[in-house]
Amino acid sequence: MANPPDRSFSDPDEEIMHATYRALREHGYADLTIKRIAEEYGKSTAAVHYHYDTKDDLLAAFLDFVLEQFVDTIHEVERTDPEQRLTLLLDQLLVEVEEHQDLLVAILEMRSQAPYKEAFADRFEQNDEYVQYMLRTVIDDGISQGVFADVDAEHTAAALMTIVDGARTRAVVLDDADALATARQTAEEYVQSVLLPEE
Amino acid sequence: MANPPDRSFSDPDEEIMHATYRALREHGYADLTIKRIAEEYGKSTAAVHYHYDTKDDLLAAFLDFVLEQFVDTIHEVERTDPEQRLTLLLDQLLVEVEEHQDLLVAILEMRSQAPYKEAFADRFEQNDEYVQYMLRTVIDDGISQGVFADVDAEHTAAALMTIVDGARTRAVVLDDADALATARQTAEEYVQSVLLPEE
Repeated sequence: MANPPDRSFSDPDEEIMHATYRALREHGYADLTIKRIAEEYGKSTAAVHYHYDTKDDLLAAFLDFVLEQFVDTIHEVERTDPEQRLTLLLDQLLVEVEEHQDLLVAILEMRSQAPYKEAFADRFEQNDEYVQYMLRTVIDDGISQGVFADVDAEHTAAALMTIVDGARTRAVVLDDADALATARQTAEEYVQSVLLPEE
Repeated sequence: MANPPDRSFSDPDEEIMHATYRALREHGYADLTIKRIAEEYGKSTAAVHYHYDTKDDLLAAFLDFVLEQFVDTIHEVERTDPEQRLTLLLDQLLVEVEEHQDLLVAILEMRSQAPYKEAFADRFEQNDEYVQYMLRTVIDDGISQGVFADVDAEHTAAALMTIVDGARTRAVVLDDADALATARQTAEEYVQSVLLPEE
């Protein structure tokens, strides 16, 4: 099987990243300025600009920071049997994020800018490729161990990511606290009927 | 009640809506200005402001315009048998939109602003409620006619909308031409296994 997609990124200054997170939570993406990030950072705007030339550079680094932390939690999922492992992955994608509604709001704003900002688009694409790779791997394992039906693993992974992205969009746009739970149940029904149809 | 004004010939509102659509396609939501809309309209900014006080008022009206047109296409779906009708609804939601990638880009930007702009949030909520109502109705019809399994129609409609919203987000963020087709297939698999499990 192919290696996972390369996800080596720049090494962001962690303090500035945390300051950016606080500034985003307080002001939202559209009203975010280097000045507001510097205020949270407790230093001058020059101190922020020393690390990042532009706000977009800083936000691209922030996306690296957030998505890499997310990838770490995905990576921590223990290699148990394929069915359990898929359950844990879907929990990470759809249950754990529930505590981070502020971040989902900011990330949807950045996602909506992907058609205009290549640096954002690149990061969302790499992250999606990585998560799909993780899903495909566990599905392929399940197929070769005979516990999953012989499905098209690539389509099945994309289908699950469609449910995940729908939930995240709906949680923000409709301010719907149930959107993630509805999607978790939908993903479960999909897995039960497509991957485990004989149960 | 008074009759509605005759809108059969060159309604200025409709002309402004078409001008807004062209300006959105050209400049995107973030760089959209009343001046740019007025240029597409072929009149002064004052002529636009005569109809709409602010850009947000105009964009809220634009969302009404777009979502109402969309609702019309949904409404046109003929009342055939429930299974066919559900197929046609899902085609409207996931296949017909394929031609309107520019509009999906602009709408995702407006969706991402829903947490900050109540007028946008209201419109997206109303539209979602309407489409879910259409889905629930056809599912309930199918259950009472004995052609669909006795599912929770509310959850099933929300599950299908999660797939629809995931597809629309992915088509924009990942610039993925296959996102809609993948979601259409996922929705079909979901319908086949959850609503028609005995086939």
